Amino acid sequence: MAGENSVKLHGMWASSYSKRVELALKIKGIPYEYIEEDLSNKSELLLKYNPAHKKVPVLVHNGKPIAESAIILEYIDETWTNSPRLLPEDPYQKAKVRFWVSFIQQQLFECIGRVVMSDGEEREKAFKEVFEELKVLEDGVKEYFPDSNVLCINEENLGLLDIIICATFSPHRAAEEAIGVKILDPTKNPLIFSWVTALNELPLVKELLPPHDKLVSVVRLIRQNALNSST
Amino acid sequence: MAGENSVKLHGMWASSYSKRVELALKIKGIPYEYIEEDLSNKSELLLKYNPAHKKVPVLVHNGKPIAESAIILEYIDETWTNSPRLLPEDPYQKAKVRFWVSFIQQQLFECIGRVVMSDGEEREKAFKEVFEELKVLEDGVKEYFPDSNVLCINEENLGLLDIIICATFSPHRAAEEAIGVKILDPTKNPLIFSWVTALNELPLVKELLPPHDKLVSVVRLIRQNALNSST
Repeated sequence: MAGENSVKLHGMWASSYSKRVELALKIKGIPYEYIEEDLSNKSELLLKYNPAHKKVPVLVHNGKPIAESAIILEYIDETWTNSPRLLPEDPYQKAKVRFWVSFIQQQLFECIGRVVMSDGEEREKAFKEVFEELKVLEDGVKEYFPDSNVLCINEENLGLLDIIICATFSPHRAAEEAIGVKILDPTKNPLIFSWVTALNELPLVKELLPPHDKLVSVVRLIRQNALNSST
Repeated sequence: MAGENSVKLHGMWASSYSKRVELALKIKGIPYEYIEEDLSNKSELLLKYNPAHKKVPVLVHNGKPIAESAIILEYIDETWTNSPRLLPEDPYQKAKVRFWVSFIQQQLFECIGRVVMSDGEEREKAFKEVFEELKVLEDGVKEYFPDSNVLCINEENLGLLDIIICATFSPHRAAEEAIGVKILDPTKNPLIFSWVTALNELPLVKELLPPHDKLVSVVRLIRQNALNSST
């Protein structure tokens, strides 16, 4: 455990990246002060703490800022070494978890974003890519973790991959309602679908998920702004 | 040190991502077998080892494949714990190094790619962004590492940031010759420029850098293909 602790999180309620960090802090049982940022009028502190990106989330631990959710999550697990560990100890298992975290973050999340923010042919193309990548993820998770039952989920054994899956896919119903297409299909992606469903049932997750209707409105707004700026 | 060791690297001579891994293996003194991939006709092994991305580099350690350079580099440092350590032990210092590695990889490298592969207004825009991001990097490195002299460089103290800086910027002269613009300017970015120059002087780096003329031809080819496909 880290010694003297002042932990502050600069976040934004609808940000999937902020939710990742909140989930990690809750899972590890780390008390923190949450500072909601208005992204249209960012605080002086946020700009000071993250001058390179000017983005949430920023974790401030004993006055020292750390930016970027993936880096914050590793920092949390390395600083508060109590159970549950978010990453496996074994370097190879750790590399496998990091690989799928990176795949979801760099490719899948970006692709879902393009489905939300485009229309017509472009949306069809992005949509097809999302399905292909969901299949890669579904097959990969099955093959890469053959011995572990990823669906044996409880609040005491959540890890980095659960956090990323949860923060990325839990709001899928809001995105689906906002754009009128089905992203996560239980017949095509039974593993991911069951995984997300099981995670969403956990009290810790329920407590952190943004209100559905409010999220639908935000996704619609983002979509409308993106479509307006591209015409 | 890892016990029984068979280390193979599937790479491509002009790939900056492959070079990162080769640099790490050389720095840590790890013997490895290098397998050059023809990216227009990828080996069955590469496709088997990295089905999600089908890309180099892939490190195969005792038969177990690890993909993605950033993940491979962390795996190497966690598996071969001999000196020099590529990442600092302290979680906060580690987070700072990971932050700038991610900044260079996600933003700057992508932006330099757009300068190489576009023309006219689009190139001007990308070029402006490269300069802004180089300034952020230069200021950030100065501010984030105030106590360490990053330019006190020798083969015994190279770390992750040296590897990324070296693999990203060492080929800048080839890129500059191929596209006819100056990316790294000693008057605008004296720290990065001196850093790259000092790294390029190391025998270990010299031995690994691709031949200048061959690299110029490849950059020209990539640029021509990109311009043709966008018209």
